[in-house]
Amino acid sequence: MERIIIDMDEVIADPMGDMIDWYSQQYEHAIDRQKMLGGSWVKGFPEEHHQLVMDRLLSPGFFRHLPVMKDSVEVIGELNKKYEVFIVSAAMEFPNSLKDKLEWLLEHFPYLSWKQVVLCGDKKLIHGDYMIDDHVKNLKDFVGKKYLFTSAHNLDITEYDRLNDWKEVAEVFL
Amino acid sequence: MERIIIDMDEVIADPMGDMIDWYSQQYEHAIDRQKMLGGSWVKGFPEEHHQLVMDRLLSPGFFRHLPVMKDSVEVIGELNKKYEVFIVSAAMEFPNSLKDKLEWLLEHFPYLSWKQVVLCGDKKLIHGDYMIDDHVKNLKDFVGKKYLFTSAHNLDITEYDRLNDWKEVAEVFL
Repeated sequence: MERIIIDMDEVIADPMGDMIDWYSQQYEHAIDRQKMLGGSWVKGFPEEHHQLVMDRLLSPGFFRHLPVMKDSVEVIGELNKKYEVFIVSAAMEFPNSLKDKLEWLLEHFPYLSWKQVVLCGDKKLIHGDYMIDDHVKNLKDFVGKKYLFTSAHNLDITEYDRLNDWKEVAEVFL
Repeated sequence: MERIIIDMDEVIADPMGDMIDWYSQQYEHAIDRQKMLGGSWVKGFPEEHHQLVMDRLLSPGFFRHLPVMKDSVEVIGELNKKYEVFIVSAAMEFPNSLKDKLEWLLEHFPYLSWKQVVLCGDKKLIHGDYMIDDHVKNLKDFVGKKYLFTSAHNLDITEYDRLNDWKEVAEVFL
């Protein structure tokens, strides 16, 4: 069975969307998506509020209640029948997110087991046949076929094959 | 730089030792090390107390205050200068252990970064040049050189090269 490595944030979970919703309810400052280019959606928020955004990212509970990316539950359910699926998140920078991420995953993707979850600091030691990720830093050392999952912060990247949404993932893999 | 994958429990942390100390203070029942053979040190405790032991293993805080295996801090400190060291623990079965394990590691091995930590369910997708682990289930699919770290529950295993303690690790790798 071929192995697919699937990222969490901005691929199956939507921390950026959640943060923008929360921020917009409190402030009228505009989000600048152009500034996200280069890899960090936090930079799209006004500079005086970067710390506020980081503090919320680091707080317990933030990753427990995130929205699920559209169609990801259905498509990964089908992938899980044909491939060896692993969900791999570079989460160690956020110690409070670890248990939240595991619980969130097992709630929304109940067909997955804890055996299919990896929380790490660096993905360079993760091997598989395919990787779907929104960050070049995670894809660059991967030995298998790499797919960049489209997100506001990576629209300027041209070197990778893209998957724009989960309908496209289904077209490629199913 | 060659990559070494190092396990946590029974290799650099001592949950079995901690559990035996705690148990012996409360009960006079003997621990039967013969029954640990086959992979689980929990089975060395009297059967009527397996649930008690598992409940303590699963409780928040258990993995935060474990003893450190003798000489591991010094030897891994030296390995960290010559190799790419990753600490990889199959921890997903114990959701309450995740943050505890990360904090324990960064406290006792302060020269390691969160980038060198992996908490997973299954180690089959972890690649490296060497793996040091006390469980055959973790070693069996590894692509590099495998070393069984000696523990009470694996004394019956004969198919792997052994490392009996951290002094021996130093002899082999340094």
